[in-house]
Amino acid sequence: MAVVVQKYGGSSVADATSIKRVAQRIVATKKAGHDVVVVVSAMGDTTDELLDLAEQVSPLPPGRELDMLLTSGERISMALLAMAIANLGLESRSFTGSQAGVITNSAHGNARIIDVTPGRIQSAIDEGAIPIVAGFQGVSQDSKDITTLGRGGSDTTAVALAAALTADVCEIYTDVDGVFTADPRIVPTARNIPRISYEEMMEMAASGAKILHLRCVEYARRYGVPIHVRSSFSVKEGTWVVGSLATAETTNEGNEMEQPIISGVAHDRSEAKITVVGVPDKVGEAAAIFTALADAEINIDMIVQNVSAASTGRTDISFTLPANDGQTAMNTLNKLQEKLGFDSLRYNDQVGKVSLIGAGMRSHPGVSARFFDAIAGAGVNIEMISTSEIRISVVVGMDQVDEAVAAAHRAFDLDSDQVEAVVYGGTGR
Amino acid sequence: MAVVVQKYGGSSVADATSIKRVAQRIVATKKAGHDVVVVVSAMGDTTDELLDLAEQVSPLPPGRELDMLLTSGERISMALLAMAIANLGLESRSFTGSQAGVITNSAHGNARIIDVTPGRIQSAIDEGAIPIVAGFQGVSQDSKDITTLGRGGSDTTAVALAAALTADVCEIYTDVDGVFTADPRIVPTARNIPRISYEEMMEMAASGAKILHLRCVEYARRYGVPIHVRSSFSVKEGTWVVGSLATAETTNEGNEMEQPIISGVAHDRSEAKITVVGVPDKVGEAAAIFTALADAEINIDMIVQNVSAASTGRTDISFTLPANDGQTAMNTLNKLQEKLGFDSLRYNDQVGKVSLIGAGMRSHPGVSARFFDAIAGAGVNIEMISTSEIRISVVVGMDQVDEAVAAAHRAFDLDSDQVEAVVYGGTGR
Repeated sequence: MAVVVQKYGGSSVADATSIKRVAQRIVATKKAGHDVVVVVSAMGDTTDELLDLAEQVSPLPPGRELDMLLTSGERISMALLAMAIANLGLESRSFTGSQAGVITNSAHGNARIIDVTPGRIQSAIDEGAIPIVAGFQGVSQDSKDITTLGRGGSDTTAVALAAALTADVCEIYTDVDGVFTADPRIVPTARNIPRISYEEMMEMAASGAKILHLRCVEYARRYGVPIHVRSSFSVKEGTWVVGSLATAETTNEGNEMEQPIISGVAHDRSEAKITVVGVPDKVGEAAAIFTALADAEINIDMIVQNVSAASTGRTDISFTLPANDGQTAMNTLNKLQEKLGFDSLRYNDQVGKVSLIGAGMRSHPGVSARFFDAIAGAGVNIEMISTSEIRISVVVGMDQVDEAVAAAHRAFDLDSDQVEAVVYGGTGR
Repeated sequence: MAVVVQKYGGSSVADATSIKRVAQRIVATKKAGHDVVVVVSAMGDTTDELLDLAEQVSPLPPGRELDMLLTSGERISMALLAMAIANLGLESRSFTGSQAGVITNSAHGNARIIDVTPGRIQSAIDEGAIPIVAGFQGVSQDSKDITTLGRGGSDTTAVALAAALTADVCEIYTDVDGVFTADPRIVPTARNIPRISYEEMMEMAASGAKILHLRCVEYARRYGVPIHVRSSFSVKEGTWVVGSLATAETTNEGNEMEQPIISGVAHDRSEAKITVVGVPDKVGEAAAIFTALADAEINIDMIVQNVSAASTGRTDISFTLPANDGQTAMNTLNKLQEKLGFDSLRYNDQVGKVSLIGAGMRSHPGVSARFFDAIAGAGVNIEMISTSEIRISVVVGMDQVDEAVAAAHRAFDLDSDQVEAVVYGGTGR
């Protein structure tokens, strides 16, 4: 008998009909002989509606109270789901994050999980009941206040519970069939990726693939929790996110080396590019720039510095950052112009990042060359390049992202013979 | 510095505008130098909307899950109210029933308060913050599950907290100016009652006055908590519900005996009358009837048995009960007909109860006679009569309730010179 943690997002429990459908799926898993623990998000637009109410009473609500407010969303969906399961004849009990033992720090709105003590969840399992746990929420260790985990919170709750319960798998249900080799809306021939390593999935998430949050994959990797991303609208196998060894062992499909080394192409249109022009080429200039930006709590993604032109003694430094932080970053740097002595700043938010992700990329020469060739062949100009062990990213013009993704996808033979990807949405399928 | 517990019902926090208005009232109380603890109900129709959702997923939801669902309502209103107060520059913290230390038994949907351990509330007060507590909810002592207190629950939460904190007063805010000598919709000249004893208020509540629930008044009486019922739409004094001695001491208005002995006229249209016709006049017949009804969990209100007619050896027994339970009661009694040997059953839900309430009624002869005279003078036929130390109730035809109430109100000089009563409703005044 396996322990299975299943996480259902807001679109899977958007209304009473969806909740009843999810209940049937949970009951089927239980009847197949597994111990099921469910993690659930708030219904559909609940969180936005609650935020709207908060805005009406206060322009800047205290974090503690905002967390208290928002956590009512999962309270509603989890109680309804437990009722729907009870109506199918099985016992089910809902638990808040606090009741489930999700202990966090006190950072309201973006709390970190410190510990998980799932005593009540384990008792419910032992008594044959199906526990339904509120995702996205916990209780602070110090003040016993209700907290929320921030972006990707419900997925993280599911993985953390799976780790604490030493579950066999953490199933993340969504409205697509898994992780694809590219966004199916851009590349209709994109294929579902059957297996991917934690590291590659982390690169995919960091490169703009929205299906799993980076934080949840990091947590799963640290505790070795196998994740199965799949659709709540079909019974197809989705994407397994696993450690490299675990993959070979658990799936028994033979040698890892036979896998294609390229997992997929991700893209991200949410970033902007800033170029600091004419930075004096002396020690400590780059450090001063990025320290100032870090002090302003701005996360920098890619950084490129060209070799200094000997004739001028000056260099250009370009970096990308979330476009939301663009204004703050420009203000911060403008204040430093006199002190640092650079010539000017250039800002461009009409950019996009295209990334090729694949394990063992470095050990296969020619991957970079083929990637750049493909992009050039599509008539797309590359503005910046950055690489890691298992990723190559380029920055291109925003309106050329689609062409670059499609060209790279084709160049690495990722296209399937037919259109496989189905984005289900709320059609009830 | 006094400790004041203020309870705001759903109509007082129905939307963002109302919540901001209530926040101003709370802040004004705090700035006047009092320590304020607030108890709040769910916003407007939230509870009905949640019940509707529950009905959509399950025809008979488990009590534990229904409580989990419904308690999200206060979670929303209390967080928003705390935000609105913070926006006015004061610190405020919201607490669930569980966090506030409201410990109950495990009777989901109708839990009884076993203990109140308001350690976190006291700490918040000591630190100068305004605690906002969710009404209507608690946590079960045995299983640590979330419970709800059932009808009148939020008022009871407020009184229980006031008792545990030895508050100086528990203010119950509503949409009328207090307790009136009769329902102002029936008797436009009804007056606000400035002071009333717990016992009279309990009789008023049991006789159909909806402004305070019987249970909350019982709790206040047991722990000697003064209740001040008043409107959240005005600053007028409302009605003080107090112990008889406390009244004279605290208000210093002189001798209790100078008060008019009649407090008011209450009415109730929610009951039905059942007559068991031709009950054999022998020992144990009445006991058998009412034991059967008690076993069916039916609450009986008035019971009247006429003297047996010597010639037949049979008697009639009439009683009133909530009309909702009428069908169950008739079924229960029909099954007993052969065993008990009565002739037939008569059912009438077109009845109403009119009650005259006043301390010391028994020691003032002639009150009953004047009450019956007044009703007869209005052309209303009396079907049943029952009395207590401080109450006389009659059952009349439902369509004659208004006339009977008005006539009694007039006969005991309860009319004011002018129309005083204002029912505020949601007009924002």
